[in-house]
Amino acid sequence: MDELSAGIADDRSVDFLATHPWPLRGARPVTETALHAVNAWWRAANYLSVGQIYLLDNPLLREPLTPDHIKPRLLGHWGTTPGLNFVYAHLNRVIRERSLHAIYIAGPGHGGPGMVANAYLDGTYSEIYDSIDRSEDGVRRLFRQFSFPGGIPSHVAPETPGSIHEGGELGYSLSHAYGAAFDNPDLLVATVVGDGEAETGPLATGWHGNKFVNPRQDGVVLPILHLNGYKIANPTLLARIPETELLELMRGYGHTPYLVSGGFDGEDPMDVHRRFAVVIDEVLDHIARIKADADSGALRGRPAWPMIILRTPKGWTCPREIDGHPAEDNWRSHQVPLRDARDTEAHTRLLESWMRSYGPDELFDENGAVAESVSALAPDGDLRMSANPVANGGLLRKDLRLPDFRDYAVDVPEPGATVSEATRVLGGWLRDVIEANPHDFRIFGPDETASNRLDAVFEVTDKQWNAESLPMDDDNHLARTGRVVEMLSEHQCQGWLEGYLLTGRHGLLNSYEAFIHIVDSMFNQHAKWLKTSRGIPWRRPISSLNYLLSSHVWRQDHNGLSHQDPGFIDHVVNKKADVVRVYLPFDANTLLSTYDHCLRSRDYVNVVVAGKQPAPNWLDMDAAIEHCTRGLGLLDWAGTERPGEEPDVVLAAAGDVPTLEVLAAASILRSRISELKVRVVNVVDLMRLQTQDKHPHGLDDQEYDAIFTADKPVVFAYHGYPWLIHRLTYRRHGHAHLHVRGYIEEGTTTTPFDMVMMNDIDRFHLVMDVIDRVPGLGAREAGLRQEMQDSRVRARAYTRLHGEDAPEIRNWAWTGPADGVDHRPNE
Amino acid sequence: MDELSAGIADDRSVDFLATHPWPLRGARPVTETALHAVNAWWRAANYLSVGQIYLLDNPLLREPLTPDHIKPRLLGHWGTTPGLNFVYAHLNRVIRERSLHAIYIAGPGHGGPGMVANAYLDGTYSEIYDSIDRSEDGVRRLFRQFSFPGGIPSHVAPETPGSIHEGGELGYSLSHAYGAAFDNPDLLVATVVGDGEAETGPLATGWHGNKFVNPRQDGVVLPILHLNGYKIANPTLLARIPETELLELMRGYGHTPYLVSGGFDGEDPMDVHRRFAVVIDEVLDHIARIKADADSGALRGRPAWPMIILRTPKGWTCPREIDGHPAEDNWRSHQVPLRDARDTEAHTRLLESWMRSYGPDELFDENGAVAESVSALAPDGDLRMSANPVANGGLLRKDLRLPDFRDYAVDVPEPGATVSEATRVLGGWLRDVIEANPHDFRIFGPDETASNRLDAVFEVTDKQWNAESLPMDDDNHLARTGRVVEMLSEHQCQGWLEGYLLTGRHGLLNSYEAFIHIVDSMFNQHAKWLKTSRGIPWRRPISSLNYLLSSHVWRQDHNGLSHQDPGFIDHVVNKKADVVRVYLPFDANTLLSTYDHCLRSRDYVNVVVAGKQPAPNWLDMDAAIEHCTRGLGLLDWAGTERPGEEPDVVLAAAGDVPTLEVLAAASILRSRISELKVRVVNVVDLMRLQTQDKHPHGLDDQEYDAIFTADKPVVFAYHGYPWLIHRLTYRRHGHAHLHVRGYIEEGTTTTPFDMVMMNDIDRFHLVMDVIDRVPGLGAREAGLRQEMQDSRVRARAYTRLHGEDAPEIRNWAWTGPADGVDHRPNE
Repeated sequence: MDELSAGIADDRSVDFLATHPWPLRGARPVTETALHAVNAWWRAANYLSVGQIYLLDNPLLREPLTPDHIKPRLLGHWGTTPGLNFVYAHLNRVIRERSLHAIYIAGPGHGGPGMVANAYLDGTYSEIYDSIDRSEDGVRRLFRQFSFPGGIPSHVAPETPGSIHEGGELGYSLSHAYGAAFDNPDLLVATVVGDGEAETGPLATGWHGNKFVNPRQDGVVLPILHLNGYKIANPTLLARIPETELLELMRGYGHTPYLVSGGFDGEDPMDVHRRFAVVIDEVLDHIARIKADADSGALRGRPAWPMIILRTPKGWTCPREIDGHPAEDNWRSHQVPLRDARDTEAHTRLLESWMRSYGPDELFDENGAVAESVSALAPDGDLRMSANPVANGGLLRKDLRLPDFRDYAVDVPEPGATVSEATRVLGGWLRDVIEANPHDFRIFGPDETASNRLDAVFEVTDKQWNAESLPMDDDNHLARTGRVVEMLSEHQCQGWLEGYLLTGRHGLLNSYEAFIHIVDSMFNQHAKWLKTSRGIPWRRPISSLNYLLSSHVWRQDHNGLSHQDPGFIDHVVNKKADVVRVYLPFDANTLLSTYDHCLRSRDYVNVVVAGKQPAPNWLDMDAAIEHCTRGLGLLDWAGTERPGEEPDVVLAAAGDVPTLEVLAAASILRSRISELKVRVVNVVDLMRLQTQDKHPHGLDDQEYDAIFTADKPVVFAYHGYPWLIHRLTYRRHGHAHLHVRGYIEEGTTTTPFDMVMMNDIDRFHLVMDVIDRVPGLGAREAGLRQEMQDSRVRARAYTRLHGEDAPEIRNWAWTGPADGVDHRPNE
Repeated sequence: MDELSAGIADDRSVDFLATHPWPLRGARPVTETALHAVNAWWRAANYLSVGQIYLLDNPLLREPLTPDHIKPRLLGHWGTTPGLNFVYAHLNRVIRERSLHAIYIAGPGHGGPGMVANAYLDGTYSEIYDSIDRSEDGVRRLFRQFSFPGGIPSHVAPETPGSIHEGGELGYSLSHAYGAAFDNPDLLVATVVGDGEAETGPLATGWHGNKFVNPRQDGVVLPILHLNGYKIANPTLLARIPETELLELMRGYGHTPYLVSGGFDGEDPMDVHRRFAVVIDEVLDHIARIKADADSGALRGRPAWPMIILRTPKGWTCPREIDGHPAEDNWRSHQVPLRDARDTEAHTRLLESWMRSYGPDELFDENGAVAESVSALAPDGDLRMSANPVANGGLLRKDLRLPDFRDYAVDVPEPGATVSEATRVLGGWLRDVIEANPHDFRIFGPDETASNRLDAVFEVTDKQWNAESLPMDDDNHLARTGRVVEMLSEHQCQGWLEGYLLTGRHGLLNSYEAFIHIVDSMFNQHAKWLKTSRGIPWRRPISSLNYLLSSHVWRQDHNGLSHQDPGFIDHVVNKKADVVRVYLPFDANTLLSTYDHCLRSRDYVNVVVAGKQPAPNWLDMDAAIEHCTRGLGLLDWAGTERPGEEPDVVLAAAGDVPTLEVLAAASILRSRISELKVRVVNVVDLMRLQTQDKHPHGLDDQEYDAIFTADKPVVFAYHGYPWLIHRLTYRRHGHAHLHVRGYIEEGTTTTPFDMVMMNDIDRFHLVMDVIDRVPGLGAREAGLRQEMQDSRVRARAYTRLHGEDAPEIRNWAWTGPADGVDHRPNE
């Protein structure tokens, strides 16, 4: 392998290389020897990719191919694979030559066989999966397992070493890449963007990540836009615009584009290797110069980071034509070009000659091990892209240093005696979390961090911004580096956070509740990733993905119906119970306690919905911790039951606004039907409502009944769509007696109390619900019921006249227990 | 107003104007008179916008402003509004001069007061809303209702005349615009793209719509990228990149950018008017030349359509500073710049001087009516953008001419006797729907129309594609015009379809089931639009938004877990029951019947999930129609109950794969426990399961019990996440006896039967479920239960060995009733 490294051996940049992660290569051209090694790797990777798609047996073609050697179900995607392999091979060369620290993100991750093949060639695969060893049997098992029952999926997946990017839904490669690059100044994130993927919205805005990364303190994303021209059944847009336009688009995105095109009409791949090698060396030198300038302080403004446009035929190196139709350089090679490989002699022969065209006898030794001439291109140890620990972030993850959240508690001498904006209190703690963890914790958000009242964080950090700045930005906490990253794209924020977590760091995404639905599908993919990776021993747990959803459904005062949607919770609970957690802290102290828990957890998605408006504090910190530890509990200071007695009715709530209405309703009931024994319950951890067989947080039935009773009416005021509570509790004893109020998709720009009235979750309606449901009360309390109805009418009339809620609503405050006895817990 | 029109009166283009919708203006400059009229309109619109945000009373400032005149809750968004008004005023001039047929899409639709103000100025608002007349009282009511309880929302909304674009979630203005432009060759869709919105993914790819519209047969989208520099709390990206980069980006997107910048540092707005008027005339002439060339056949390739970049200060014309902080040209003017207008004398005075700066006394006559000098700029009648019927598409909508779907029925001599790919059969009908409706029906999809087996449509139409073409495209049905539009962006497809429907046409979106979650949030917004517009008398019903979701969760043979997600249904049913419909036709004929119904319906969102793989046909067309009309029903040919007897157990299914498994289970039960009375039920219309108070399609309890019984065990095999069935049925009598199997988030790339086994919804498991749930059967049939368990083990072992399902699974076929009696309905 000396020859391979020879290109750089006597170069003056060697000293530089030894001390600097971003070495210049200098002017010395790539040797033909090195290029032949690259080509051998590429051929081997292509061979192994085709083999995975087609072969059950005879993996090295040591005998003539027969139908029995071919899989009965041919599944996979060939079209993108040779391009992925091509880039991988070239990256191996430059990683070796420059000791680069690089990972590979395969945007077209459906080219799964390629990424598996490369990980096999560099040895990682056999290190991780014992049975897939470096022998003919190992290759046989490698081929067989692909897209095979009990084997591995057809796409790049958590099972694939070196991957942080699932090959399912398209559009997130660049966001993941920039997420990985933040705070990894020595990391090169080589990111292949497929031209299909490039049409998606998230990818189209993903390019703008280059306006956020800091050239000195963050790593480098090298986008490689791979134009192979076709999607499943259509040409791709970016392959069908004039080249001048394409270059303008890339420059317009802020990049310096480098273009390589080749492999068409039978061009010798060696010629394409030659051109690509020159370009990638130029590109890496360009990056090295930017990095050096950034380090020395010579860099002014945002650099036009290089990117590569690689134009090669779809399905490159497969048969040019199959059954009279073009295959190579055509959409027909997207999946499995030879569909009848097992069924027709002609296709069997064509498959054999296709595979033999890669020269398997040169690529594997007589035992079936990868030939030394091929494997020598693999970088050493952790520098192999499939073995880089950055791509198995749990290996690198360190627990956060968390300041004691108890120190941030708001004072609550009596329930409701003080008022806070819950997220603002959390912001104070997050400020100190940032200060204690300056390198591996970030807050992402779509322009709403201040709106969501987390602005205390700006006392110690800034919003990272590497686009142009103006003097007026000084009072707006914009800076070249900072722990908060904001762009008006939930996709980008979610993708950045995922990339950041998957490479071993911590963070949260704060967003308006309604618009987190924008990333429903991204959440799906991440939850599936976590579900699968939990079953893979070599994947180490990563930090949980934490949402902080504020500006929630009930307080869209400036907006209206379009901003009212609490359904993300419903979406989330469809995913594996092992993975998802949903919390609805109802005041400042419960939010602090909840979030401390979330930032300590691993391998979950934590959804936390919290209010940002001034609202009463209900629990002091000790009570909050106890309440959050249980996940739910009685607010016994608010109820009127006595020890040893069963209540007549349970008023339950989840969420800050519903809890306020429940407490106001309890207050009315206490003063107006004093003999009624009311229990008040609050639920913070929604998953506690489920049975234990459905969710690990689930209460057992006895615990559940002890709180909700088995047979008393329960009136439950819930933050979101009411059916979710039914779903979570449908196997509970008391389910038939459960009556849920929640958001029923009614709303507009109006007052907070008008909002709760529009959805029948207001205090007056809750009292009516109690009267209607407690046996005997309906007849006895018809007068109070009518009074409640009248109160609703009056409240509505007031808002329509004055444009704000009536003073008795706005100024309502909890007045403590009527009997003078302090029921607060822990006292 | 002669002077206003004078600019064009003696121009040579007048004749052209009379006969051509896209007239050239020629060289004559805009008169100062015309510009003053534009400025007067702009001032009036700004005045009315500020008034809506702040004032309860004293609307025309006929007396000094006092706190009592000011709203107690100041809600709304000023920042973007003056820019929206500016563009609107200029468009009015050119519409008048050229008799343009134009609509206005306000990407920054949170500038709601602006769009309302313009609709008031041109008279439409008063025509639609009687009480908001053209008087001082009318203006008072106009102001008061804005963001006020019982009034109108703060954003552009269905209540806003001229709007097809809700001002809530950002990102879809260009997709909506291109959707409106398809098949409207004479329409100009002026589309203001906010620079905040421009950061979103959907908008970033929305620009590529210009590669699809046909210059001759479609309308023209004129994007106006409005850079006001700031979002809620941050600068915007596109305002903070070098101008050269911005221009390259726009050219890279395929546009010819025209740039106007002005209004900064107190520049006289008249100067900005002058520059913008020249540019918009140039732009419209540019468009007219493209259109003329397209009509004459002189146009070659895709034109670089013009677009405008308009750079003006955020909050333009509001106070430069407030309390020592910059307001105009700053993010602080995003919402309500003077937050204390009612509370501090200084702010009250500042508000008054701000409002008086527009010169209200010149803008309104003594009765408070809009001055003639202002209102004269309004185009005539339907040419007013707020009155254009295109923006109230129901006015223009015509029912589709639908070929009789019965003629496309597949032959079903016996249940299961024939096999079809259901969506392929539907494709045959859709082909003829297209042929019968060549101008107002389109199919949108992300590159999956052929994959979803709808390719029969290509016998009569093509995929519309105005990017570059190659000879090899000829066999791929790509053409300059066609009724199918495909781009690999679900966002773009959904946005196009919404724009197309909202302007009075018909269509459907076909997609892989899992990835329709990408547009969850867009669906939310459209469902909210429909919910609201149903309550607005002047909004006429539009065609339903029809989804065809195929490549569903159970048949992701090429892909895996990432492609498996049936949760869109769960997402959809959270929206108002009036608006949403969910259908799971289980074979070809039921799909035909279902889709015919969907294409006739209005103001719904119809979600149809259907299989594309070869699968048995169960119902002949008569039976299919009866079944679909009922929405659910007994498959009595599959059951073993006898007339007049109650069954021992009900096996129910919804979806094609679950129905197959249920029938196979029924078959096993019939042969192995012959005395067991099994009822088999299939549900096509999922909403039938709900009670009538929850959904208009709901069965009453008696009907429900007649099908599912009130007390017998029901084993329900459901296509999606099982909890949804519990949710829909939780108030039903038999709910405690209902046991649901469905997708429980288990899957990978594997065989179809392995997939159902992984989720315990396979035939063997269903038999076990029956044995476990029918009283007495558990003990008696322990042997059969074990046999079923063994069958599962055997089936799994077979697939792991052979890579495909065992022959007895693959080749299983319904064999007809064991007793020789034909139970089929209708016979």
